Amino acid sequence: MEEFHNVETDSLLFEKISEKVRKHPIVIVGLPGIGLVGKIVADYLIKQLKAKKFAIFYSPAFPPQVIMKRNGKVRMLSYRFYHANVSSKEFIFLVGDIQPFDSDWQHGVCKGLLEYLSKFDPKEIITIGGYGTNQFVQKPRVLGAANAQVEIEEYKKLGVVFGEARGSIIGAAGLFVAMSRFYGIPAICLMGETHGAYVDANAAKAVLEIIAKRFKLKIDYSELEKKVQLTERAMREIEEELKKMQQPKEKENLNYFR
Amino acid sequence: MEEFHNVETDSLLFEKISEKVRKHPIVIVGLPGIGLVGKIVADYLIKQLKAKKFAIFYSPAFPPQVIMKRNGKVRMLSYRFYHANVSSKEFIFLVGDIQPFDSDWQHGVCKGLLEYLSKFDPKEIITIGGYGTNQFVQKPRVLGAANAQVEIEEYKKLGVVFGEARGSIIGAAGLFVAMSRFYGIPAICLMGETHGAYVDANAAKAVLEIIAKRFKLKIDYSELEKKVQLTERAMREIEEELKKMQQPKEKENLNYFR
Amino acid sequence: MEEFHNVETDSLLFEKISEKVRKHPIVIVGLPGIGLVGKIVADYLIKQLKAKKFAIFYSPAFPPQVIMKRNGKVRMLSYRFYHANVSSKEFIFLVGDIQPFDSDWQHGVCKGLLEYLSKFDPKEIITIGGYGTNQFVQKPRVLGAANAQVEIEEYKKLGVVFGEARGSIIGAAGLFVAMSRFYGIPAICLMGETHGAYVDANAAKAVLEIIAKRFKLKIDYSELEKKVQLTERAMREIEEELKKMQQPKEKENLNYFR
Amino acid sequence: MEEFHNVETDSLLFEKISEKVRKHPIVIVGLPGIGLVGKIVADYLIKQLKAKKFAIFYSPAFPPQVIMKRNGKVRMLSYRFYHANVSSKEFIFLVGDIQPFDSDWQHGVCKGLLEYLSKFDPKEIITIGGYGTNQFVQKPRVLGAANAQVEIEEYKKLGVVFGEARGSIIGAAGLFVAMSRFYGIPAICLMGETHGAYVDANAAKAVLEIIAKRFKLKIDYSELEKKVQLTERAMREIEEELKKMQQPKEKENLNYFR
Repeated sequence: MEEFHNVETDSLLFEKISEKVRKHPIVIVGLPGIGLVGKIVADYLIKQLKAKKFAIFYSPAFPPQVIMKRNGKVRMLSYRFYHANVSSKEFIFLVGDIQPFDSDWQHGVCKGLLEYLSKFDPKEIITIGGYGTNQFVQKPRVLGAANAQVEIEEYKKLGVVFGEARGSIIGAAGLFVAMSRFYGIPAICLMGETHGAYVDANAAKAVLEIIAKRFKLKIDYSELEKKVQLTERAMREIEEELKKMQQPKEKENLNYFR
Repeated sequence: MEEFHNVETDSLLFEKISEKVRKHPIVIVGLPGIGLVGKIVADYLIKQLKAKKFAIFYSPAFPPQVIMKRNGKVRMLSYRFYHANVSSKEFIFLVGDIQPFDSDWQHGVCKGLLEYLSKFDPKEIITIGGYGTNQFVQKPRVLGAANAQVEIEEYKKLGVVFGEARGSIIGAAGLFVAMSRFYGIPAICLMGETHGAYVDANAAKAVLEIIAKRFKLKIDYSELEKKVQLTERAMREIEEELKKMQQPKEKENLNYFR
Repeated sequence: MEEFHNVETDSLLFEKISEKVRKHPIVIVGLPGIGLVGKIVADYLIKQLKAKKFAIFYSPAFPPQVIMKRNGKVRMLSYRFYHANVSSKEFIFLVGDIQPFDSDWQHGVCKGLLEYLSKFDPKEIITIGGYGTNQFVQKPRVLGAANAQVEIEEYKKLGVVFGEARGSIIGAAGLFVAMSRFYGIPAICLMGETHGAYVDANAAKAVLEIIAKRFKLKIDYSELEKKVQLTERAMREIEEELKKMQQPKEKENLNYFR
Repeated sequence: MEEFHNVETDSLLFEKISEKVRKHPIVIVGLPGIGLVGKIVADYLIKQLKAKKFAIFYSPAFPPQVIMKRNGKVRMLSYRFYHANVSSKEFIFLVGDIQPFDSDWQHGVCKGLLEYLSKFDPKEIITIGGYGTNQFVQKPRVLGAANAQVEIEEYKKLGVVFGEARGSIIGAAGLFVAMSRFYGIPAICLMGETHGAYVDANAAKAVLEIIAKRFKLKIDYSELEKKVQLTERAMREIEEELKKMQQPKEKENLNYFR
């Protein structure tokens, strides 16, 4: 069996793989959410920057199911921490399978993760999400919501739009930003405009460009472009299916009442 | 980043902004509920008495969502404490965004807040609510339900009606009054009669007048009157929509079965 | 304000009114359940034996609502303990407003109450319930389910039927009996046969007669007979309403599709 | 009353009946799940190997209901531990009435049971389940998913298929395997292919044969064959009912709209 060390924090379980993470990292959080924008962005950066997994996080907040892998093994639903050092900047990426459903577990998991991350004394936490518009967006803007004025100033320069997003950010992307203030960590949520009903690599690209500019990263978008095309096709198919659904249900009714 | 001090009580988090609250305050609680009567009354008093925010309360009982503000920042759902000193009377106002859904969280949050408030040794706790009548009420009465005979006597003199409200008070407005007894604090729930299906400034005014008489406060109702007019118009619109909804759904059926 | 002493056990809150309860009592539990048989029996015994309230129990497991009383006061949902001494036998009665919905709270409340009761070292715990038959029962039998052979022997002599009730006892009436074993207390659930869809004083009488025989109590059934008549009339009305409901919904359909 | 010893672990309650379990057992877990395959296999092995009950486990995670037994007694929903020593191999069987519904309780119960089992220092944990195919399976295969390569090698030799099962294992059968890694215990989930909509003794037999081969057990399948025939008949009846359900609901509609 593989070796592992684990540290338990209340009902959270961390499995450490490596401890070579440097202090003062930039943390990028991409959990499942609207348009899967956050997930695509974080996964893409992990691949592009060749980030290495250094910790796994398990929680009773996740559904009691295990994923069967192609190699015959199982793995629990988890959040995974990766890190990469690019031009003397340390990055931590947090990705995962799912978000907890219950309010108190969302708060509990978020607090547990922030307490873990705060040990590395992060410079900044960036959460990625989608901003649902219910419309096809040709040129998605990136909307921002931060916990400190310094973040707003920094990202305004890069073209991020503040004060125009309406309503609430639901789930971890928002909670991380708000709760980071209690740990004294500047944090921002970057939201790519997206339809909301499909996986949107286009919105992901818009966010990736902001991050690349901010940290002077060279990102090869060629793989993402392929994803964008696939996503656009998927989108058109969904829209056509939606149209069909809105047409009168004649056939079904005939069938049902014959 | 802004400075802040926080005190954690189990799963409740208090953020102190100021500690200049005087002892023996009168506490007025206006949380979201029927007709938003409680919320309107407390918000209006905060504005009229120029009350100052002195503490914020966060809880995992609240939904995991953050509100995006016009200035580009986020804020968590919260309960907020204000205080004001008027003719040598100290007032504390408790207002908030939402009430917890789960039974145990309702009890837990209420207990946490009462423990916090009991440090100031309150003279009296007044919770404000609406008493739903399902009818348009021209001259709303104020109904009362208290945890001590002394409260009943005091408010009867001011025209509050006791023993006529039927059934249960659901949520914080009732729980605060009942649980205050365990802390030895006299408490009363003042309920303005209201339709229940719309925001009712008219019921709010009836409650405000009782509070003004009780504590000899001068309240300028001119802004509230404007609210009352807006509310009445909104009410008529809702009633008309409700009437339409009760008419036979001919068109929809034709459409559905054609 | 009234004086009170309270003892807190985790998330349970006991309010003691008197401590003059004698050791080795017979405990009779009548909480809301099928046909309200348990509630009727316990309430009737409390009245007949002139039992006195000696403790109140509150729990975050109960819905966050307070009942408005005719005298203008509020009271929280609660479980109430009464005691009476009849021909040198000490009786404790446990009655209440509601049962918790969640599994863990049901177990938690039951455990909390048994820990409290076990301090009095009870001779026996009797829970009262209804056994739903979905039919009108002319001469309801009393079915029994116990946690010890000694109980079965004792109640068989009195006409209680064992081994014929099928399935599960849901809620406190069953859990109390099963969990009493962990405290070394003999316990039995007495179930009066009842339709299940209405309040059944007739089933209650059958159970009362068993308890009267067992403890040589003189019970005046005249008030209960009145209740039985009222209950039977209510039952017939419900049955007629049920019949109407099973007839084809012609009028409604015509109305709905016109 | 019967004697009993109990050990409490947080909210879990263990009742020990005997402690004569030998160290380094093989643990076989058969809890209710798809096709009741796990339950049939474990129950059948307990009977065939004349295993003896040595511990009972209760939890607030289980529904608050008690089962009425034919002998007039009640029993709580529980998990039961049996053990048997066959040709100097110690076996532990874990069977039970139900699985917890809530995510956190599933994790909590699984952790509690693994902590208890780890005291015996198990050689291996085998959980049994069904793999739902939504089709009638003539010759069910046994699919495997393990937490260690050594398990995969061992069971591949016996004909178990790895890497072909898709998706997730929901509930205890999967969680036990994944969480066993934290206790350093090799574990595997054996899944008999089954329709999923009926109790399947046929799939159970396929799994039993693997276990018999693995541990050189002699199993008399004659009783199971009877079960297989009963199961197949039940299956055909269900399929016919399903066909009827898919036919146009003419009669009901006529009735409903007349």
